[in-house]
Amino acid sequence: MKIWDKGIAVDKKIERFTVGKDRELDLYLAQFDVRASKAQANMLAQAGLLSAAENAQLQQGLAELAAQLEAGTFTIDESFEDVHSKIEAYLTEKFGDAGKKIHTARSRNDQVLTAIQLFLKDYTRRAATKMLALTQVLLEKAEAHKTDLMPGYTHFQAAMPSSFGLWFSAYAEHLLLDLALFEAAHTVADQNPLGSGAGFGSSFPIDRQMTTREMGFGSLAVSSVGAQMLRGKTEKTVAFALAGAAGTLAKMAYDLVLYNSQDMAFVELPAAFTTGSSIMPHKKNPDVFELIRARCNTLQALPNTIILATSNLPSGYHRDFQLLKELLFEPLTQFLDILDMLLFALPQLSIKPDLLNQPKYDAVFSVENINQLIQTGTPFRTAYKAVGQAVEDGSYVPHREFHTTHLGSVHNLGLAEIQQKVERLRQAGWVLGQ
Amino acid sequence: MKIWDKGIAVDKKIERFTVGKDRELDLYLAQFDVRASKAQANMLAQAGLLSAAENAQLQQGLAELAAQLEAGTFTIDESFEDVHSKIEAYLTEKFGDAGKKIHTARSRNDQVLTAIQLFLKDYTRRAATKMLALTQVLLEKAEAHKTDLMPGYTHFQAAMPSSFGLWFSAYAEHLLLDLALFEAAHTVADQNPLGSGAGFGSSFPIDRQMTTREMGFGSLAVSSVGAQMLRGKTEKTVAFALAGAAGTLAKMAYDLVLYNSQDMAFVELPAAFTTGSSIMPHKKNPDVFELIRARCNTLQALPNTIILATSNLPSGYHRDFQLLKELLFEPLTQFLDILDMLLFALPQLSIKPDLLNQPKYDAVFSVENINQLIQTGTPFRTAYKAVGQAVEDGSYVPHREFHTTHLGSVHNLGLAEIQQKVERLRQAGWVLGQ
Amino acid sequence: MKIWDKGIAVDKKIERFTVGKDRELDLYLAQFDVRASKAQANMLAQAGLLSAAENAQLQQGLAELAAQLEAGTFTIDESFEDVHSKIEAYLTEKFGDAGKKIHTARSRNDQVLTAIQLFLKDYTRRAATKMLALTQVLLEKAEAHKTDLMPGYTHFQAAMPSSFGLWFSAYAEHLLLDLALFEAAHTVADQNPLGSGAGFGSSFPIDRQMTTREMGFGSLAVSSVGAQMLRGKTEKTVAFALAGAAGTLAKMAYDLVLYNSQDMAFVELPAAFTTGSSIMPHKKNPDVFELIRARCNTLQALPNTIILATSNLPSGYHRDFQLLKELLFEPLTQFLDILDMLLFALPQLSIKPDLLNQPKYDAVFSVENINQLIQTGTPFRTAYKAVGQAVEDGSYVPHREFHTTHLGSVHNLGLAEIQQKVERLRQAGWVLGQ
Amino acid sequence: MKIWDKGIAVDKKIERFTVGKDRELDLYLAQFDVRASKAQANMLAQAGLLSAAENAQLQQGLAELAAQLEAGTFTIDESFEDVHSKIEAYLTEKFGDAGKKIHTARSRNDQVLTAIQLFLKDYTRRAATKMLALTQVLLEKAEAHKTDLMPGYTHFQAAMPSSFGLWFSAYAEHLLLDLALFEAAHTVADQNPLGSGAGFGSSFPIDRQMTTREMGFGSLAVSSVGAQMLRGKTEKTVAFALAGAAGTLAKMAYDLVLYNSQDMAFVELPAAFTTGSSIMPHKKNPDVFELIRARCNTLQALPNTIILATSNLPSGYHRDFQLLKELLFEPLTQFLDILDMLLFALPQLSIKPDLLNQPKYDAVFSVENINQLIQTGTPFRTAYKAVGQAVEDGSYVPHREFHTTHLGSVHNLGLAEIQQKVERLRQAGWVLGQ
Repeated sequence: MKIWDKGIAVDKKIERFTVGKDRELDLYLAQFDVRASKAQANMLAQAGLLSAAENAQLQQGLAELAAQLEAGTFTIDESFEDVHSKIEAYLTEKFGDAGKKIHTARSRNDQVLTAIQLFLKDYTRRAATKMLALTQVLLEKAEAHKTDLMPGYTHFQAAMPSSFGLWFSAYAEHLLLDLALFEAAHTVADQNPLGSGAGFGSSFPIDRQMTTREMGFGSLAVSSVGAQMLRGKTEKTVAFALAGAAGTLAKMAYDLVLYNSQDMAFVELPAAFTTGSSIMPHKKNPDVFELIRARCNTLQALPNTIILATSNLPSGYHRDFQLLKELLFEPLTQFLDILDMLLFALPQLSIKPDLLNQPKYDAVFSVENINQLIQTGTPFRTAYKAVGQAVEDGSYVPHREFHTTHLGSVHNLGLAEIQQKVERLRQAGWVLGQ
Repeated sequence: MKIWDKGIAVDKKIERFTVGKDRELDLYLAQFDVRASKAQANMLAQAGLLSAAENAQLQQGLAELAAQLEAGTFTIDESFEDVHSKIEAYLTEKFGDAGKKIHTARSRNDQVLTAIQLFLKDYTRRAATKMLALTQVLLEKAEAHKTDLMPGYTHFQAAMPSSFGLWFSAYAEHLLLDLALFEAAHTVADQNPLGSGAGFGSSFPIDRQMTTREMGFGSLAVSSVGAQMLRGKTEKTVAFALAGAAGTLAKMAYDLVLYNSQDMAFVELPAAFTTGSSIMPHKKNPDVFELIRARCNTLQALPNTIILATSNLPSGYHRDFQLLKELLFEPLTQFLDILDMLLFALPQLSIKPDLLNQPKYDAVFSVENINQLIQTGTPFRTAYKAVGQAVEDGSYVPHREFHTTHLGSVHNLGLAEIQQKVERLRQAGWVLGQ
Repeated sequence: MKIWDKGIAVDKKIERFTVGKDRELDLYLAQFDVRASKAQANMLAQAGLLSAAENAQLQQGLAELAAQLEAGTFTIDESFEDVHSKIEAYLTEKFGDAGKKIHTARSRNDQVLTAIQLFLKDYTRRAATKMLALTQVLLEKAEAHKTDLMPGYTHFQAAMPSSFGLWFSAYAEHLLLDLALFEAAHTVADQNPLGSGAGFGSSFPIDRQMTTREMGFGSLAVSSVGAQMLRGKTEKTVAFALAGAAGTLAKMAYDLVLYNSQDMAFVELPAAFTTGSSIMPHKKNPDVFELIRARCNTLQALPNTIILATSNLPSGYHRDFQLLKELLFEPLTQFLDILDMLLFALPQLSIKPDLLNQPKYDAVFSVENINQLIQTGTPFRTAYKAVGQAVEDGSYVPHREFHTTHLGSVHNLGLAEIQQKVERLRQAGWVLGQ
Repeated sequence: MKIWDKGIAVDKKIERFTVGKDRELDLYLAQFDVRASKAQANMLAQAGLLSAAENAQLQQGLAELAAQLEAGTFTIDESFEDVHSKIEAYLTEKFGDAGKKIHTARSRNDQVLTAIQLFLKDYTRRAATKMLALTQVLLEKAEAHKTDLMPGYTHFQAAMPSSFGLWFSAYAEHLLLDLALFEAAHTVADQNPLGSGAGFGSSFPIDRQMTTREMGFGSLAVSSVGAQMLRGKTEKTVAFALAGAAGTLAKMAYDLVLYNSQDMAFVELPAAFTTGSSIMPHKKNPDVFELIRARCNTLQALPNTIILATSNLPSGYHRDFQLLKELLFEPLTQFLDILDMLLFALPQLSIKPDLLNQPKYDAVFSVENINQLIQTGTPFRTAYKAVGQAVEDGSYVPHREFHTTHLGSVHNLGLAEIQQKVERLRQAGWVLGQ
């Protein structure tokens, strides 16, 4: 075999190119491939394609593998191309022909796809649970700081009085909205493709509704052609969900990076989450929040990358789909890490009190000054001009007293109403079930 | 005023730059701004901020505008910056001070946002309805062609026997799955931001739950800060939904472009949807389907464009958001146009019969040849090698008879099961309700 | 002909879908199609495929069209599909068969492609010229404000003393760097595809080197297959150039939006470029710069959209490419508009003096305090700790005097060195030549 | 220290989050950091900031590290945050205070940036060299197959006679065009940022032109603010270059995947580059080319990811930039791997002869039939109709003889002209020089 430059044999280099990071990435899938194989074996046994004794062997072997996975002793060494070969080899080595029969009426295509569906369905739930936990933290902070005022900004300019209560509860509500995309992703992942073979079904008398029930899928991807088309679509939909939530978290991190600056100085970040400068002793750089922002922004780019990798391919399997594991799996973990960081950091976030007493924020009360004039009978336009003139000529005196009553305003945060939204989502079957 | 090169006054050029296409784009929003203004006036009246007589005037004026919109006589001329100025001017001209009062406890920010929310909520329903209609067409074609076989391809290679029934029903099921993202978009659009003002609420004693009910919103965006953060998020979520469905339709169009080629020749496209070549008399180019594919691919790029336009902006309004109307509204119409094209073209699509009788497709039966050998007791590996050898040395005789039984296979399409999925979606409140 | 809903005939709707915005967009191409047609006719005459008399007629007709274009009287009415049909019809109406002969040895594919190449080559030069003009403005501002200090920020935190001279000259240098991508785009656009026909050449005895010279192309796209592959590639490369420069301008706009905030207040934007708030009389929102930022961010999304529209298409023409005109041409104008806005606004930008005398920026001198201690023999680490401690306990006194000597530092901007870079680019043939 | 779920201490988890993959990625930068440190030390010595003896020590220590890197024995263990800490620690351990002085007048910001600039400048040259090698392979294949005809496709339909000579030379010319973006990337990477400190220079009397010469940079990034702004821009420009070339290679791979299908069967791929199916013995799947296509498509997504990670950040360093190493470095290697794959595979590619003798391609000669009629005096329109009619009614007889003469046509490939383009690029200083 010809040798490449740097002494690598051609076939080795080709193998490395085609296998890529599959062995490593397949660890994400192992437990789900075991679960799907158990369902497959039970179904084959019921269909008479496997004897009861053979099925008992397979169930035992698969339970052993599940235990190895649980214990963290499962590995995929270099002699196996991927997790699926490894599992089959384990069963075949133990049980001979019975082990081989696990592959009856199943092709590598629907096998991989089924494991990915189960994994991503499970992932959407786990991510949603963490997002709900973060929502709860935000609502607690909103409650704790409901009387702490801050300037509200538009166009990067201090505009009107706002509060930390409004700010925290805003992000709480948005995480709840972001769960709508996770629910969509869960719906797509909740389709059972097993039995679709290479994408065109088979002539084996299999029972696809039974495997659907056994694996706990909510629905069967009926058309075998359509089942195969899930490859790429589920990954893309999960990526949309990540991107949606990442957009929210990037904005929150951006706010906190700004609020940590000397110019604003609205918050104090937990010390463990900031870094000093090697040459400037006065700085406390908000590195962790900058990295959260940047990481969230790369998550926002993920759907596009997945779309580009798979667009303009006609129906049917193409090897291109293999790359999706590499593109998606690590970001899935990164997203959970970001949630963990925030779950730890946010409770420790300190708020600077009395921000609006600084003279530089006087003008944010101008709307209240106008409202005062209106209540004494001045028309809006006249009041607006008078206050504007006062700001201009320096005679302006802020009207600091104000009271709001409507839902979602400074003095009526409506946290109970938001908590009800949380409860409705907690009760939605897809978040907590399984 | 200084004059730019080409004789344009600077202020004119700046105005053109800042107004952009707003007047034209606001026609999408006009009816929804009228609807929101009616709710706002009713609420102000109930809160005592408007007299009953004033409210009656406003309701009448707004009804007139609604009638103009219905009749197609509503316009926004150059003296108005946008639709909102136009509506206020109309009311003020007719009713004087009462007209001006429509803006009480409302800022331009929550006014625009409310109209966009109502518009996009309405759009997701209309789009979903068309998608369900297309699903129905696909299921009818699947039924009509359930016995028409075609080669199933993987890796751009003929692989196994498939059928038009499987192909049509695959796309039907995928359109149904794509509705999960439309439901998410609908959920986000179904939040009422009215009353959040410039993003920090106001001290007016307004009743935001009343306007939520009056406008038929499913939920109130409680936190005023969070309500303002809907700007950009709703557009992005709708873009995700478009991109998801566009991915499905692009794949379908790609398939049909290929199936129309001389090499494959699986289908005959309706004549009105193909174009001849100016120099090659033998060609029937599938231009409409190529344009559908290309247009769908640009729709797949849309979420990324929206994300880039709005990412890394802290909370609070920025003028950047104005561009979202331009980025999103025309694509919304393009997507409906694509659905219209397909609703018209697909019923006329002709299928070439007996495709699998062509010798070039003999090898797609090799899996059946293997299955035959297995049923006579040959182990899989031996059978696989024998058939492979026969293909190689030219002695292979395809085993054309095959029968499938499982759900989603050639001879058991499971169309009834798919139809049940359609029915469940039809009954989901968000698709059909008003 | 069947009628669509809303009373539109099907063929009309299909035509509208396929023609799209071509008539409007083709106005960008008209003068270049005329120029290419003149070259084509001259070459055909020399090759004996056109008589001298016929060529004289065509040259005259094309000169008339050029004059109409110059005068702004050229139009494409609805009876023509595009500019190319219009031009051919004009020539045929005037000169009969001679008019038709302009299409000899040319197909619509290479005709459109040639006009696009000429247009984009011309565009890259025009854009580059405007970018150099903006560079010059920035260098003049750098010179004017070379002694005006400002705080330099990292991590959104005031870090060290910087200056407006450094800031302005930074953007000047970056615009020069951005021209490297414009040069690449110019190189790709400077390839002559004429004569490649539908992408496979023809059996006519044409002279492609003659048309290359006549149209002033720097190079011939030799392989006809490769010539056709320019479709999409030139557009993409131009989009890369726009995106690169847009990234620079978005950052500049972002800086200015921040510098205009009350918290920073480093600059005063020209009044014509800011907007008041409808409810907050104290605000001067930097709307024009926000829109520049947002527009630049959508320009940064453009390459991705073009890539998605054309990726995964094999070699050879596909109708998909038609959409590129719609995707690219309007953004080309938007980019020039942005440059115009900045060319007008930047000279009027006012700088706030003495920014670093504000106590809140005392700490930015801490690096200088450390350097002072080092010069008196204190090791860096000890000095760093001492100054850090002083900042912490409030005893810190900033060492405001500092003097820099190296190129590119506060007191040695190196504007002459940057000006030399400008001159080298001005002399590069591609920027100024015709 | 509090413990996270799963037993990970909080500070450990934060460290892992902030360090990320830096240690591993910094191996790409190590040799360039050593080279820059040598230049820095020499300059400090000349400026009197380092004694000759100290400089001799540093040069020796850095030479040792360079030797370790060459020998592959250099490592960065967990006690170091990154390669820069490791190098400084090595020097300090060996030489005490002299070792520490390497950091004089340098901050981590300009140090990292300088190493990245040197690395990416070097990379653009190495990639360009490989691309030229691939161009040469393509031109050799074009020469070898210059008489092998193939059908030319448009709209996925066989259109006109083409040849492998045209096809191979098309991709050769396009790789040359793709080098224009590599040259732009090289230009941006060829700017020396050393001495810009944290982005605002320093008061040390350093000589930045000397380090520019010592490191072989073509130009100095003069403004310290501008130098810092290279962070992100160089990475983005390199990503544009990768994306451009990846677009070309993806198209080539797509063509080959199609040409390998049974329907087309134009080529035979080298056996080592195809894979069999686990269940279909007749298949030879073009997996390597599918993976090249998919990988190239993810490379096309790279600029967008980098833009999203860094857009809407004002000038000055942000920690966000750290992620760019992770986003860019691995793809850089992937691109070289793809070129290696193609350099090995293409010479082994077999061409199927006499493709156009297949009856299914008869109609591609219709243009020649028309030309024949024209030469006998029939007007084009009449000839077009006659041939079209013959194709329609089955009486058509292809006119297989044709002869082309123009440059870039089937019988006159113009390979010498393309070779001249190669030579011009080979002589361009940036490709080959050091």
